[in-house]
Amino acid sequence: MHLSFIPESTLLLGPGPSPVHDSVLAATSQPTIGHLDKQCFALMNEIKQMLQQVFQTRNALTIPLSGPGSAGMEACVANLVEPNEKVVVCINGAFGQRIADSARKVGGNVIEVRTAWGRPITPTALRDTLTQHPDAKSVCFVHGETSTGVLNDAQALCAVAREFGALTIVDAVTSLGGVEVKVDEWGIDAIFSGTQKCLSCPPGLSPISLSERAVNKLTQRQSPIPSWFLDLSMISNYWDVSSRAYHHTAPINALYGLHQALSNVLEEGREELMARHAECQELLISGLETLGLECLVDKDSRLPQLTTILIPDYMDDKDFREQLMAEYKIEIGGGIGELAGQVWRIGLMGNGARPEYVEQLLDAMSRLHLRSFIQIEMQADSAAQPATCLN
Amino acid sequence: MHLSFIPESTLLLGPGPSPVHDSVLAATSQPTIGHLDKQCFALMNEIKQMLQQVFQTRNALTIPLSGPGSAGMEACVANLVEPNEKVVVCINGAFGQRIADSARKVGGNVIEVRTAWGRPITPTALRDTLTQHPDAKSVCFVHGETSTGVLNDAQALCAVAREFGALTIVDAVTSLGGVEVKVDEWGIDAIFSGTQKCLSCPPGLSPISLSERAVNKLTQRQSPIPSWFLDLSMISNYWDVSSRAYHHTAPINALYGLHQALSNVLEEGREELMARHAECQELLISGLETLGLECLVDKDSRLPQLTTILIPDYMDDKDFREQLMAEYKIEIGGGIGELAGQVWRIGLMGNGARPEYVEQLLDAMSRLHLRSFIQIEMQADSAAQPATCLN
Repeated sequence: MHLSFIPESTLLLGPGPSPVHDSVLAATSQPTIGHLDKQCFALMNEIKQMLQQVFQTRNALTIPLSGPGSAGMEACVANLVEPNEKVVVCINGAFGQRIADSARKVGGNVIEVRTAWGRPITPTALRDTLTQHPDAKSVCFVHGETSTGVLNDAQALCAVAREFGALTIVDAVTSLGGVEVKVDEWGIDAIFSGTQKCLSCPPGLSPISLSERAVNKLTQRQSPIPSWFLDLSMISNYWDVSSRAYHHTAPINALYGLHQALSNVLEEGREELMARHAECQELLISGLETLGLECLVDKDSRLPQLTTILIPDYMDDKDFREQLMAEYKIEIGGGIGELAGQVWRIGLMGNGARPEYVEQLLDAMSRLHLRSFIQIEMQADSAAQPATCLN
Repeated sequence: MHLSFIPESTLLLGPGPSPVHDSVLAATSQPTIGHLDKQCFALMNEIKQMLQQVFQTRNALTIPLSGPGSAGMEACVANLVEPNEKVVVCINGAFGQRIADSARKVGGNVIEVRTAWGRPITPTALRDTLTQHPDAKSVCFVHGETSTGVLNDAQALCAVAREFGALTIVDAVTSLGGVEVKVDEWGIDAIFSGTQKCLSCPPGLSPISLSERAVNKLTQRQSPIPSWFLDLSMISNYWDVSSRAYHHTAPINALYGLHQALSNVLEEGREELMARHAECQELLISGLETLGLECLVDKDSRLPQLTTILIPDYMDDKDFREQLMAEYKIEIGGGIGELAGQVWRIGLMGNGARPEYVEQLLDAMSRLHLRSFIQIEMQADSAAQPATCLN
C-alpha cells in the first residue's frame, strides 16, 4: 500500500510524546465504527472504568475529552472558575503559567503563588496566600511540571486548599502513570491529564475526572459556561450511560488506542509501571553523573519520568540535540520559557522507561559529549599555537 | 497481538463517520514522532497545502485544529465574535442552532434567521434581517445541514453578507469534499469542517481556514479571545513555518491519517469525488422511490452526500435501524432535534459513496421493508378474523 507520508521512526525520550507501543498503534488502526453504535458505548464505558482505576477514583465524571491536555485544562478551568471569582494558581513553570493564563481568559481573578522554576511549591506558600485570600474559590497547580521536571506535592497542596474550602484543579498531564495519583484519597476536585506521556498513547485526548464537589459547583454556576465544545454539563450527558445525548463525534480510533494503552497499564500494574520509571531515572542519573552532568531539580522533588539536566557551558544546546537526532535518531527536549537554552529535558515515560533505551541514550550522549571535549581541546591547542604556524 | 477491544466492522452509511479507507487506517498506525520534530513540520506544511487545495483558498491560516468539528466551530466563533456584538445566525437545523448557542456562550448578541428544517435559508431572508440589523458584524450559516440534508447556497449567502460588510462564518463539516466549496471565490471569511464525513478520515480533527479579513478582525479585537485552547493567534504561530511557537502537542497520528485522506481526495480529484457523490445519491433515490419512500428535501436543495427520508407510518424508526445493524451490519442515522423519529439520514460520504454500498443498503432496506408489510398484513388479517376464531 502506498502511503503519502512515511515518518522515520525516532526514539522519543523528550517531554512527550513518549514511544507508543505497537499494540496501541495496531488498536488505533482498526475499522472506525459509529459514535452512537452500541459497540462504541461499550468502548466508552470500559475506558471510563479503566480511567477510574488509573486515577484511583470513583468519580462518575471520569472521561477522556476529545482534545489534547490543554483542552482538558481549559475544560476544568472554564467549567469551574466563574468570572471575577478569586482563583489561586501555583506557578513554578510554564504549565502553571498556562493555567493562570487560561483562568484569566475566562474572567477569573487570578492570585498567583510563585516559586522559582525548578523548585516545588510549598504548602506553606499556598497557606500564606490562602490566608490573605480566604475568599478564593479554587486552587490550581501542576502535579508534575513538564517544563522543569519538578514534582509538586499534590497531597499536601490539596490538604491546604481543603482547609480553606477551595476546590482543587490539578494538572496531571505528565504525572499520571509515572507517579502516584490518588484522586479520591487526596481530595482532588478536578484533574486533567494527557495520553502522550506515561500512558504511551498518541497525543490527542485528555482524560479528566471531577469530584462530586466539582460537579455541584458546575451545576450551581451563576454564569453560563463560556464554551460549547468544552461544556462538561453536555459532555457528561454524552458519556453517561443513561442518557447518551449526542454532543460531538468522539474520535473513535483515538479511543481504541486509549483503551489499549489503559489495558496495557493495568495489565502491567500501576505499581510496576511506577517502579520502572523510578529505576530508569536512577540508571539515567548515575550515567549522567559519570559524564559530569547535573540535574536542575533536587532529588526530593524530582519527577521520575522527566529529568532536567543543566547544559554545561562547553556544550551547545541546539547542536547537541540536532546531532542526537541526526546521528542516533533520539529525541530529547530543550528548555522552554525561563529555562530555554539552559536545560535539556529527558523523558523516560511509559513505554520509553526501559533500561535499554537509557543505555542507548547514555551511549549516544557520552560520544557526543566526548566530541565536544575534543573540539574544545583542538580549539585550545590551535589558540595556543603561534599564528605563523597557520601559514 | 492481543488487542483489548476489537470492534465488529460495520458499513457506515449514516451522517458520519463515513467508512475510512484502509490506507488512512494504515497511515494512522505509523510510529508516533515528536510534534517539534522537523519531520512533523513537513507533515504539517503538506497538510496545510492540501487543505488549501480542498478548500480552494490561498488563505495562509488554513490548518486542522486538534479537536472535532465542534472545536472548529467554537474556534471560529470565539475568535471572531466579540461580546455584545451583533451576529446573524441562519438556523434551519441542529447545526445552525449549535452555532447560535456557541455565539451566545461567548457573549454575542445573536440575531436569528430561521427557516423550517428541511428548507434552505434564502438570500432574501438573510438580506431582510441584515437590513434590519445593518450593524451586524458577522453572518454564520451551515453549508450542508447534517441534521436535515439541506444544502444552503453558500455563494449567495456570502454575497449578501458582503453587501452589508459582515464577515461570514461557514460550517462545512458535511459539505467539504462532497460538493463545491470555494472559499476564495465566494468570499468566505472563516470556515470549519470535520474529517469524518466526505474526507473519510477518522473523527477528531477540524480543518479550518480564515481569510485576511478574518485575521485582521482577530488581531484587532477589543476584548481578549475567551479561550486558551482555541486561541487562533497562538495556534497560527504553532502552524506558521517561520515561528513554530509551541502551543500544544498536535495529535500526530491523526495528522498522518488526515495527510493520507487528503492525498486520496486529491489523487482521485475533487471533481471526480463530487461526481461520485451525486451519482450515488441518484442511484439511492431511484431505489428508494421503488420502495415508495420519499425524501424530506426538495431536489434543488438536496445535499448529495446526505439523504433524509421520511419514515412511513407503517415502519418503526428504531426497530428498523436496529434490524439493519443487527442483520446487515449497516448503520444509518435517525433524525435529531425537530426531526427525531421522523426521518432517516443516509450518508453516502467519501469512501462510502460507492454504487456497491448503495446496492447493499437498498437490498437490505427492501427486505426489511417487505417484512414490515407482511407484519402489517398479518395484523390486518388477524384483526379481520371474527373473535371466536381465536378460541
